[in-house]
This record gives sequence, C-alpha cells and structure tokens, in this order.
Amino acid sequence: MKLSILQEKLKKGLNITEKISLKSLTLPILNNTLISTEKNFLNLSTTDLEIGIKWWALAKIEKEGKITIPSHLLSSFINLLPNKKINLSLKGNDLDIECENYKTKIKGFSADEFPIIPKINQEEFVKIKSFDFCKSLSQLVDVAIPSTTRPEISGIYFNIKKNLITTAATDSFRLGEKKIALKEENLINKDYYLIIPQKTIKEIINVFGEKDGVLTIYLSPNQVMIESLMEETEHPEIQIISRLIEGEYPNYQEIIPKKFTTQLTLNKEDFVNQIKSASLFSGKVNEIKMKVDADKKEVSVLSQSIDLGEYQSSLPGKIKGEDLTVSFNHKFLLDGLLNIKSSEIVFDLNGDSGPGVLRPLGDDSYLYVVMPIKSS
Amino acid sequence: MKLSILQEKLKKGLNITEKISLKSLTLPILNNTLISTEKNFLNLSTTDLEIGIKWWALAKIEKEGKITIPSHLLSSFINLLPNKKINLSLKGNDLDIECENYKTKIKGFSADEFPIIPKINQEEFVKIKSFDFCKSLSQLVDVAIPSTTRPEISGIYFNIKKNLITTAATDSFRLGEKKIALKEENLINKDYYLIIPQKTIKEIINVFGEKDGVLTIYLSPNQVMIESLMEETEHPEIQIISRLIEGEYPNYQEIIPKKFTTQLTLNKEDFVNQIKSASLFSGKVNEIKMKVDADKKEVSVLSQSIDLGEYQSSLPGKIKGEDLTVSFNHKFLLDGLLNIKSSEIVFDLNGDSGPGVLRPLGDDSYLYVVMPIKSS
Repeated sequence: MKLSILQEKLKKGLNITEKISLKSLTLPILNNTLISTEKNFLNLSTTDLEIGIKWWALAKIEKEGKITIPSHLLSSFINLLPNKKINLSLKGNDLDIECENYKTKIKGFSADEFPIIPKINQEEFVKIKSFDFCKSLSQLVDVAIPSTTRPEISGIYFNIKKNLITTAATDSFRLGEKKIALKEENLINKDYYLIIPQKTIKEIINVFGEKDGVLTIYLSPNQVMIESLMEETEHPEIQIISRLIEGEYPNYQEIIPKKFTTQLTLNKEDFVNQIKSASLFSGKVNEIKMKVDADKKEVSVLSQSIDLGEYQSSLPGKIKGEDLTVSFNHKFLLDGLLNIKSSEIVFDLNGDSGPGVLRPLGDDSYLYVVMPIKSS
Repeated sequence: MKLSILQEKLKKGLNITEKISLKSLTLPILNNTLISTEKNFLNLSTTDLEIGIKWWALAKIEKEGKITIPSHLLSSFINLLPNKKINLSLKGNDLDIECENYKTKIKGFSADEFPIIPKINQEEFVKIKSFDFCKSLSQLVDVAIPSTTRPEISGIYFNIKKNLITTAATDSFRLGEKKIALKEENLINKDYYLIIPQKTIKEIINVFGEKDGVLTIYLSPNQVMIESLMEETEHPEIQIISRLIEGEYPNYQEIIPKKFTTQLTLNKEDFVNQIKSASLFSGKVNEIKMKVDADKKEVSVLSQSIDLGEYQSSLPGKIKGEDLTVSFNHKFLLDGLLNIKSSEIVFDLNGDSGPGVLRPLGDDSYLYVVMPIKSS
C-alpha cells in the first residue's frame, strides 16, 4: 500500500470511524481501524461487531493494499500533524507515515484478522434529510434504557412507510414518539418495523447530526444501513451498518391517552425553571406536585423535604378542564420538556393517576407520555 | 433578619463563596454559608477551616440578624431565580426567600455553631494588580503536589519584598519560578517568606482571576489575606484568608543552573506539537529523546516503543554550544512549555544529566527547571 492524502481529510475520517473502536480485551483487533484502498479511494472501517462504520475519501493511490492500525494511536497522531500532504506506505505490517518533518512507523496487524462487516441488500430504501432525521432522533434517543430482561425496549422503534417514519422509545415509565414526514415517494414494497439499538442511534446522531444533505436508509430483515454520499462523486462517503434487535416492540399506542381531564398551555422556559427549582427540595423520591387552579388560570409547583424546607412557585397558563393536584418525578418531566424546542407546550393530564402527555404547541409530530407518581 | 437584594448580586456572591463549602461529614456546619448583616451590607462567609472566604454587597437591610444555610442548595436555588428583587427574612431558623412568584422556606442552622474565621493584623501589606498576580500564579500553581512527608513543597513559596514578589513551586522533579515586580513602594517593614497552600492559590485564581483592579495582600506570621474592594464604597468586597504551611522551603535557588552546555531557541507551538506527537510512542516511562545538531541548526524529537512503533520529527532552531542527546519525561516538558505564553522559548541544557531550564524568549521573569531522564 502506498498513497497520499491531505491531513485534514484523513483526520475527518478517523474522527468519524474511531469512536466505534473498542477497548476490547477478548478481541483486540476491534481496537484497530482497517485501512484499505479501493480504486481511487482510501477506505477506513471500524466495527464493534454490533455496528460497523465505513468512510471513504479520494486519495492518490500509488499501490493497493490493506492493514489494520490501532485506532486511538493513529487518530491522536494524525490529529497533531500539520494540514499538509501525508504519505502512507506499508512495509510488511509496519505503516510508515510521513508528513513534512514528521516521520513515523506504526506497527499494524494483518487485515485478514479484521471481522467482515456484512453487506446489506440495497433494494429497499428510503431517503431523508440528514439534519431532520438526527434532530428527530435526538428528541427520544435518551428515553430508552439498556434492559437485559426486555431487550426490545433498549432499542428505538421504527415504523417505516413510503411517506412516513414513526419512531418511539420508552423505559416503561415514559414514552417519546416522533413522526417524520418523508418528502419523496420512496421505493419500498412493504412497511418495515425495526428496533435499532440505542447505541446505533447515538452514533448516527454523532456522525450525521451536523451534516447537510440526504441520507439513504437501506432496509433488510436483520440489518439497517445509513449512508451519505460524497457531493462531488456520488460515491458513498459514510456508511453505518447495524444489526437490529429481535423481538416484538410493546404496543405502545395503547397507552397514549386520546383525551384529557385537564389541559394546560404553558410557557416552556418558565415551567422548566420552576421544575428545576422545585427539584432542589424534592427529596429522594424526586417528587414534585402540580396544583392546577382553572379559575385563577394558574399552575402552582410545590415540593418539600423534612430536612431542607419547602418550595412553592406559580406560573400563569391557559387551562381547559378540571382543577387538579398531581405529582410527577421531576426528572421524567424535565427530560420530556427539554426535548421540546417550541416556546409554548401543551400538557394533557388525566386525573392524578392517568398518563400525562407533553407536546409542543401547534406541532403534533412529537409527544411525550409520562406517568404520575401515585399519591400515597 | 430581613433584607432585600437583587438576584444577580446575590448569585455572584454565592458563586464565589460556595466553592470552599465542603461536603464535611464530621463537621456538617462547614457545608453551610453564614449569612449575616453588617450595617448596610449583606455578608456571606464560608470556610473549610484552612481557607475562609468572605463576600459583601450593599443591600436594603430592614432588620439585622444571621443564620447559616446549606451552601449548595442555596446557591443552586438562587441561580435559578429571575433577576429581580429577592426578599430574605428569618423566622426562627427558617429562611424565607421570596422573589416574584417564587416562595421558599429553607431550614437553616444557628450561626453560633459556625467556626470563627480568624482576623488578621492589617498593618503589613503589599498591593498588586489582580490580573497580573493571578496570571503569574497560574504559571506555577500546578507544579506543586500534595506531599505528606514534605508538606512544605505541597505549597507555593513566596518571598515578598517592598518592590518584588518571587514565587516558586516544585515537586522535586521540576521547579517553576516567577518574579512579579511591584509598581508601588509598599509599606512593609521586613521581607516575608511564606508557604501558601496550593488550594488557597487555586482559590485565589478562581475568585480574582477575571477581575480588574488591585488586590491587597495582608501579611502576618501565620496567615495571609487577599482582599479586593468595592469600586463604589471602598468597602471590602472579597476577602480570602488562609493559614500558611509551616516549615522551611527547600533552597531551590541552588538547583537553578547558572550556565549551559547547549542553548536552544525554538518556536514554542512547533516544539509542543512535536512533543505531544512523540509522547504517543513513548511507552510507559514517558521518555522522549531530543537530538541537537548544531551544524544543521536542527533539533530532532524521537521516541519509540516495542509495541507501537517509532517516531521521529525535527524542528529548526537557533543553537548555541555543543551537540547533545538528552531524554525527558514528556509530561514534565509539556507542563513547563504550556505555562509559557510567548511564541519563542529558550531552552538551556546541561549535558545529558544536568538540569534544563525553559524560559520565554526575552522575559527573565519566569523560568522552569526540569531534570532529564538519565540514559540507561
């Protein structure tokens, strides 16, 4: 292998692929990045056996070849080089790296030992704007939690139709759901129901969150692949390939209430601030109380602790329906509120023990269901 | 106690005093802030028994009094309030806090239990610009390390004369020294030799580092106090009072070499970058090698590890004296270099086993002595 590439380009690629490279003791090759040539392109690949990331860039290839190199060492070193031409050349398993007055030899390991990242059938796919997709995912990715007894809720649920993606996450105490309309008619022959690991979704947000352009989501029964293309060549630039979680996702639609006994419309920032303040006095159960006074058009937020003291504040709001006193875990409320970007929120309540639903005002694409703490 | 004060002011004070408030299990009162009135002023005090911090602000005092309140709770709560008038009033040991639509009662503890922060004799003092003082201290504060066997080197050494402060820190592997000229003739009757705890110096940098204006350093045999005044009233705004470390500071002047066998003048950024790169290949002993070639006017930086590979880079420099190969711990070199703000550095070397001295080019006020790793 012999090639040259600009430092800035290589650095960008390594920063994308390095993150997935594990500190694996049982399979040390997973700490490495597979570097290989493919015609005019340099390719970097990493995998943790669950997710694989591939990245390509145009490079001046003088001699083909492949090798694996410790990811963290390589990335740290390339990051420190000046933004000049880097020459890579392979001698046995040693990768010589030259850049201006820097000259380094890194010991590599044979590419043959590197696990093969499986290919996916590229017939069924939908296209979506990168920015919209990642912003939507970030509204619910943190709701899921790792669960060994119920692996399906440790992933993010996707229902993919030709013109709509519905995605949801729950930890059984609360639930986030987001619908993303697809602009183009997409060429899939059936609807897809997938559970994608939370870690994959976080990686997708990391890698594509700041990127403009369009992503293609390739669908298959056991795997999913997210791909972006290079602007100039239409060649793939980044591919994230992930296994899916097997199992049946809970029929969460059932727990989304269709009505309310009390509906609040509140300024989000004020509400968030008062919940944060109340949380300081909420003690170990994280309980804060909301008192809705429809006549006064006012919601009070209360909390108290024997050790610390008492808290009370109020904020004005539009109120429909009955007066109500209801308690929530402040963390669950805040998680939902902070995922909403609008300045006003709608909060549908169902008595002191039925589920509450948070929504951005005037936007039905996102909802967050949260269960009250039952009054003792 | 009954008083009112703007949220922004109180928040500023709490952010300054809170940091020193400990999570102390043996003496829980140390987790608290002493709030008291002094004529027209509100005073906040915290202490960890080694350092005490006092802060004052003008407030509308309706009734005098004092109480101690859990520092972290109070500060977190006040931080979240809107920037409006806050009313504080004491009922028994409960502090009622009202601000717009927020109403809170925090349980306090009697001020009588709060340790007395000792007063210092205010006859002997020097004055110094806050910004200069903190910037100088930050150049060496991290060189000191906690040491139970040699408590004196766990502090920062000060030699204070009428027109010059000399300050130094060492961990016995390296040494930083900074001289700060004092503009005014200061009214002290003798020279002072102090060892101030590292923690106090860090707190001084934290509290005064971003402030304009002049600090007064009050000197006594067992304590030191750093004070800033309010612009409007000339009343003290902040006081940090600290105990001193007893003992004799090592006669470090002895180990600062007065000559060199090789002198390098190098671009700091390039040198730093090459040391960082070399450090990646330096293995567990952190050893990097420098090779000075006077004819070529070039310094090479080298490192290698059996597991990882080999590194080599070079940078041009002005070189006086002999060719030399010498090894250093890259961490110690970097610590010194990163404390130097100039773009060019001078590095005096004394063979492969004598101490090296780093200095900013054209500035004799700072120096950093570092010992080579002896070649095996």
